[in-house]
This record gives sequence, C-alpha cells and structure tokens, in this order.
Amino acid sequence: MVVQGLGFVGAVMALVVANAPHEDYVVIGVDLPTHEGKQKVDALNKGVFPIESADPTVEELHEQALDQQNFLATCNEHAYEVADVVVVDVNLDVEKNTDSDRALRGYDVDLSPFKSACRTVAERCPSETLVIVETTVPPGTCRNVVKPIFDETFEKRGLAKTYRLGHSFERVMPGPDYVDSIRNFYRVYAGIDEDSADATRDFLESIIYTDEFPLTRLGSTTASEMTKVLENSYRAMNIAFVQEWTEFAEEVGVNLYEVIEAIRKRPTHRNLMFPGLGVGGYCLTKDPLLASWARSAHGKGDGEAHLPQSETAVEINDRMPRHTFERLQTALDDTVEGKTIVLLGVSYRKDVGDTRYTPAAYLYDLLEEHGAAVKLHDPYVEHWDERDREVRQDLEAVLTEKVDAVVFSTPHTEYEDNAELQRRLHALPDSIVVHDAWGVLSDGEIGALQSTHRVQVSGRGDLHSEQTHSTETDSFPVPSFDSSTTATSSS
Amino acid sequence: MVVQGLGFVGAVMALVVANAPHEDYVVIGVDLPTHEGKQKVDALNKGVFPIESADPTVEELHEQALDQQNFLATCNEHAYEVADVVVVDVNLDVEKNTDSDRALRGYDVDLSPFKSACRTVAERCPSETLVIVETTVPPGTCRNVVKPIFDETFEKRGLAKTYRLGHSFERVMPGPDYVDSIRNFYRVYAGIDEDSADATRDFLESIIYTDEFPLTRLGSTTASEMTKVLENSYRAMNIAFVQEWTEFAEEVGVNLYEVIEAIRKRPTHRNLMFPGLGVGGYCLTKDPLLASWARSAHGKGDGEAHLPQSETAVEINDRMPRHTFERLQTALDDTVEGKTIVLLGVSYRKDVGDTRYTPAAYLYDLLEEHGAAVKLHDPYVEHWDERDREVRQDLEAVLTEKVDAVVFSTPHTEYEDNAELQRRLHALPDSIVVHDAWGVLSDGEIGALQSTHRVQVSGRGDLHSEQTHSTETDSFPVPSFDSSTTATSSS
Repeated sequence: MVVQGLGFVGAVMALVVANAPHEDYVVIGVDLPTHEGKQKVDALNKGVFPIESADPTVEELHEQALDQQNFLATCNEHAYEVADVVVVDVNLDVEKNTDSDRALRGYDVDLSPFKSACRTVAERCPSETLVIVETTVPPGTCRNVVKPIFDETFEKRGLAKTYRLGHSFERVMPGPDYVDSIRNFYRVYAGIDEDSADATRDFLESIIYTDEFPLTRLGSTTASEMTKVLENSYRAMNIAFVQEWTEFAEEVGVNLYEVIEAIRKRPTHRNLMFPGLGVGGYCLTKDPLLASWARSAHGKGDGEAHLPQSETAVEINDRMPRHTFERLQTALDDTVEGKTIVLLGVSYRKDVGDTRYTPAAYLYDLLEEHGAAVKLHDPYVEHWDERDREVRQDLEAVLTEKVDAVVFSTPHTEYEDNAELQRRLHALPDSIVVHDAWGVLSDGEIGALQSTHRVQVSGRGDLHSEQTHSTETDSFPVPSFDSSTTATSSS
Repeated sequence: MVVQGLGFVGAVMALVVANAPHEDYVVIGVDLPTHEGKQKVDALNKGVFPIESADPTVEELHEQALDQQNFLATCNEHAYEVADVVVVDVNLDVEKNTDSDRALRGYDVDLSPFKSACRTVAERCPSETLVIVETTVPPGTCRNVVKPIFDETFEKRGLAKTYRLGHSFERVMPGPDYVDSIRNFYRVYAGIDEDSADATRDFLESIIYTDEFPLTRLGSTTASEMTKVLENSYRAMNIAFVQEWTEFAEEVGVNLYEVIEAIRKRPTHRNLMFPGLGVGGYCLTKDPLLASWARSAHGKGDGEAHLPQSETAVEINDRMPRHTFERLQTALDDTVEGKTIVLLGVSYRKDVGDTRYTPAAYLYDLLEEHGAAVKLHDPYVEHWDERDREVRQDLEAVLTEKVDAVVFSTPHTEYEDNAELQRRLHALPDSIVVHDAWGVLSDGEIGALQSTHRVQVSGRGDLHSEQTHSTETDSFPVPSFDSSTTATSSS
C-alpha cells in the first residue's frame, strides 16, 4: 500500500494503515525528491514524525510501524510498481488574488501538480491497482481529470483499463485527535464504477473502526468530492456569519458570548459559532473557492461569483483579523506605532503547530506595517516559517516591562487557567491592553485583571464585564429610533 | 394577567397561561377593536380557536380554560387596569422595497403601532405592573423605546416609576408542537433592572416546565432582543446557503440530498439544511432586517447593508421560488403559458395553515404572470387570504386529466406515503411533470412514477433516481478543467 504525499494528511494516514486493525499492510510513503520531501522521508524513517502534534498516538503508531518493519518512506517512484492500493494525498492549491485590504479579486486553481502526480502513479502502477483520491479537489475531478489520465496512460502502456478509482476525502484534524480523526470518524466514499466503490469500501473497512462510524457510500465520485467542499464551505460561512454580529454587539455593549450560548441550547442552532480572530489552515481558507471554480468551469462565464455566499465567507474570514487590529489601535490611543505587542499564539488552531494560512499572520502584518514591534509566543511553534521569525516557548521572555499590549491570538489550552501567565500579566504596567480574541480568559481572570490592575481588557474580556445599563443607553442613542426610517439594503 | 395581541403567538400564549402548571391566573386576551380583532375575540370566547392547528392540545387547553372560567377575550382596553402582568404580543412589521425580480432595494420599519400599543398599556396599567415584551423588536427597543414611553406616561399620571419591564421573546412554532413550543422549550429573558428580571423569571417559571428546559438570564434586554434576531438570521442564512449548492448539484447531476445526509452525520454540521422551495412565515423573512435596521439606527449611515450576510440571506430566500419556476418552465417546453399547474400546499410550513409570506405565493405569482392556470390544494387552508383564492382539500378536484404539472410546494405530512395521491398521479397522462421541491416523495414512489408512466420528476425526484456515470460526464464537460483557469470573485 502506497501513500502519495507525506504532508499533514499523508504522513499520519501512512501510519494508520501500517497499524490497520483488520488487515496487515506493508506501507510505503512516497514524497517528491525535493529538499523538503527528502527531509520528511529521512525524518519518518528515523522515527521522527515531521509534524509537531499534541496527539501521543502518532508517536505510538510510528514506533510500532518501525518495530513491525511494515512502514518505509521514500522519494523513489518505483514504489508505485508494487502497489495494490495507492492513496493520493498530494496538495491542490488555490492562489488568491487580493487587494491591499484583502478583498478577494479573483483566484487561480492550478491542477498541473495534481495531474502530474496522478500521471506518475498511472505510469507505474500494476494494472489492477486501486487508486483512492483523498485530496480535496474541485467536484468532477476524478471523473473528468483523473480517469482520463489513467485511461490514456494505460492505453499507452498497452494495458486493459482494469485499475479501480475511488474518492474518499479525509477529515483529518491535526491536534489532540489527529489519529482518531482518521480511524474513529465518519467517512464518505464513492467509486468511478461499482467495482471501484466496492474496493474502496473494503480498504476503508480495514483501516477505520466502521462499526462505530459507518461508511456512507455516495452515487458518484463527483458527489463525494462535492461533500467535502460543501461541508467546509458550510463551516467557513458559519464562522463568517458571526463577524457582523460581533461588531454589532460591540457597538451596543452586548456580550455576544452569552447570546450565542443561549441560542446554542437549541439543537437546530448548535452549529452557531463563537467569535474569534479569524480562520486559518489549509482547508476552510480555500475549499469554497475550489467548488466555485468547478462551477465556473461548468459553462458559467467568468466575472461573476459562482457560489457567491461561499466565496463571500472566504473573503470575510480572510479579512477578519483586521477587526482585532482596529480594536487594538483604538485601545492604544489610535496608533500602534512604536508600541510593543505580544501575540500569544501564531498557529491557526488550538493545540497544533500548524501555521499555514494562520489568521495571526494578517494581524502580524498589519501591526508590523503600522510600526509596532511584535513579540511572538506559541507552545507548538519554534520557528514561524511563513514569516521567518523565531517564536518563544517561555512566557518570561515575551511578557516583560516593555510591553504595551498582549493579544490572545490562538486559543491554546496552555493559556487557559494558567497561573503563571496570570501572574505575569498582573506584573505588567497598569496601562497595558489585554485583548482576548478567542474567549480564552475566564470571567474571574478578567475581573481580577480589571479590578486590581486597571488593565484594559477587550475581546471576550469586556463583554464578560458587568454591563451598566447607562453605558448601554449611551452607546445606543434614543433619537435614531424615532418614527419610521428607511434603511437601504446591500443589493 | 393580560395578553396584548391575539395573533399566532398571543392567542396560544393566553391559553397556556390560563392553564399554567404552577400558578392560578385569570387571563384576559385583548385585541384591537377592528373587524379582525373583534372576530378573533368572538371566536375565542365561543371556544373556536382562530388559527387552524395540527396540535390537539390547543383545543384541550381552550376547553379547559373556558370550563375553569379563567379566560376571556375582549377589545376593551380597560382590561389593562386590572393587570398584574401584561405580555405584549403585538406585531412589528417590516415593509420591504423590492424590484420586479424581488431584489431587495431597501425596507421600512415602522415602530408606530408597536409604540402606540405600549402607550395604551402605560396609560392604564397599575403602577406595579410587570410588562413583558414578547414581540420581536430591533435590539435596543425595550431600553430606548418602551422604557421612555412608560417613564413619560407614568410621570404624566403622577406615578412613581414602579413598573417592571422585561423582554423574553417567544419561539412559537405553529404546527403539531404549537403548545409545547411555549411550555416545553428553552427560554431566554432579561429585565430593564434586577427587579424586572427577577419578576420576569418568576412569571416564566410559573408557566413553563423549566425543570426540563432551564431559563437563560441575559445581562440586558438588548442582549435578549439580539438573541431572537440573531437566531433567526442564523437559520435564514443556513437556508439561503444551500440554494447555490442546489443549483450547482443540479448542473452536475449530483443528488444533494445524499450529500447533505452524509455531512449531517458530523455533529458540527448537523444544522446544514436540505433544499426547499423557499422560506416563509412571519419571522425568518423579516427578523434579520429588524437587526440590520437597529444597527443602522446606531450611527451607521444609510446606503450600506449594516448586517450584509443576514440581509443577503433574506433576499436569497425571498427569490428562491423563482428557481422552481424556472425548472418547471424548462420541463414544460420553455413556457407555462396555457398550462394547468397544481400546487400541492400553499401554507409556508409543513402541517400548518399559516400562509403569511409563504414561498408558494411568489411561485404562484410567477405562474399566473406567465399565463398558467394554477389549481391549489392544501389540507390546512380553505381560503388563501393573501391571494383571495379558494383552496381545495380534496385531491380528486385538482388532480384531473387537464393537468400539465404537479408541484409539491409544501411538505405536508399528508402528502407522504399517500396511496390515494400516488394512485391519482399514476392516473394522469404520461406527459405531465411532477416537481418535488421539498423531498416529499420517496425513492420508491419516484421509481414507480418514472418507470411505469414516464412521468418527468424533478426536485428530489431526479436526484434520487439512478445516476448513470455517462450522464454525469455529459453534463460536466472535460475541457473546462484543462490547465490553470482564473475565476473572478464576487467582490
């Protein structure tokens, strides 16, 4: 069994298959013979998992696989020649064209690297190979891109078209449930024909605990491909939706956390999201655009948004960190120039070291651009590759006398109920600003910071504070409610 | 205890309070002395509930209240003079300004009738009265509109400001759970001060089964008001979101029902909605605009959408029935002129007789406008007031030889697994179009209709049919996927 692509998904997928509960596999993980690819391969063969993870199971599976000697990483493409199963886990990127304010002006989807990866497999794999695409692709790709590549290549090789081709996207979540997000989770699959679908099912049943998490078979690979981009678009939209309400609630002095908590008691409203700094990671930031691109490819002319709500969600999320920047600016007497600002957290998500498309990056850029000195802390990131910046793991190094503002920019568990962190915040000068963009601080912590040290707390902080009704009236003027008023809509 | 306004909410609220489990109330329901108001009052006093309902508990509570002689309806405003508690259940309407294609060009919120209703109470109620606003209002209204009215009126009356004022919105759902949607459901409340909040809580605890459905107290009436419009905006947006995916799925021959079913297995995605004809009723069609209007009142200039995603959701939902119209038109050789089309269902929601803002109305208007003859059937509606049309309750009268298309326009339970309905559909000519806009028909029913009678089924119908992969390829051309392509975004 060969995994193509040893990134966040492929690397852990390889280990899961090497430790499959219902079948014995010999697993070969293949990456490109680039500097980065070779580094990953070397690391994996040495027992060093290339991605920082809060899930101890990753290390266990890795050790077991090396002990069992049924796992090997390589850059050698000959590996595909012995594959019964190939799982495709290569990237498929979207390049966004944005203006200086991060408004989305267009985007490019380049299928070439993905197609080239498929061709490599098609040129070498045995004729009966089962190929399962796990990569998130524009709906229609297996049918309209992958299949033609295999048909054409097999014809050149003089082989009958006896390969099987399935699609079954991953729902991998790096973090404490990294392995469980593969082995213990619902999975959708489809095949290019019945035989392919059956083979895909059999493979998935051998690696996933399907008794507890039954598989869902869909009618076509296009349906399976659409499922992935639709579910991520739904989530992106749910996050984007809360932004305008965050702003409104702040304007009228309402604690949006308590409002959302009240609403989420209703089962029909449980997916409503809390406010945050923004959206990051490899999926939510691009998957809606993959779908929109596929719809545009289907005969709709360019120049219009083909899935407008889903595209708008991406744009709102991309721009969201600007709101935190603006609140910081206001709190710091309207300028961040010359101020020292600490970001607690640079990764895109709680308890992971993944900084790809992290919302902290846009906040960081805005702060730098406006002349602030930014100090970085993250328990999971030692070097922030995308910004080529060292990141500290010791709070002592960042929370010093010279600080003007502290921002909770990633909601790592380590920042919650952390006595040392609280002690260090209390030791800072009274004039500093603490901005909690994620609701990390408890009511008690906020109260203590506000009452004893006159620290200005924003984010969830001031939402959780006592609301005097007079303040509320002040910030929401009476006259504007008089008689009938016409508002103009967005259209 | 006095209920002000005997509409869908007030009428049933009065009966619930008259049958409160934890307190004995004498309930007076008051409506305006208009023709309609007097009709409601007469009906209620005679034991005839003015709203058609699928919930037998309504009738039970009504009978019990009349037996106990603790319920009376009246148009006489003197009723407020004896009130310990007044619950305000009057309407607060939004008037939309739309163009001929239903694009939203603006909207008016006229608070005058609501303010006048509040003034009537303030002028007559005893000085210690507890006033609870249940009406959905722009966030800030209790604080900035209702309180000033009471303060001013009490001053004129020479009374100390000893009234109590709370907000606790209803989550009433007409239909089979009409009564339970009040008595057995989560409830949010807040008061204009601690005393008002306590009194509101005590009242709610006496009428609601709060052991099972605990109350949520919020920090301000503005927070409670925002909770209602936010939760309905969330739902409106979730419905709107699926429309673009419905269109995309139809274009590429994917069964969106199975895709959504697969996604909804994830708890984080369970609120994802299935496709439908559109959105109706009194709440989802306007509540996002009430919020947006309130935000614009708070200092934002006109000419921009103040809650753009929420406003867009309203507009998408308002326009949604056009999609069903267009699919019908295509299926009927590109014109509905001179065709006879049956709408099965005119109410806005499953198993209710409420036709307010029903999406069937826009579909009906488009069909009439384009020269179709429209026949109407609904088990819960005898007369469609908004269109002044009789509606039939017998399938025989509408499903005759002369029919060209049958549309499932409301997903009433009566239409599901209905052997008579299926028999009558099968008896119709082979050429007719059956369009299921809601997923009412089962796979078996669709298969039978398609195979034996060559009836053209759209909506969930053709999504549930066998998908041949060749069709899928045909409808999703290969060349469009070649190489890198740039799509342009909405912004």
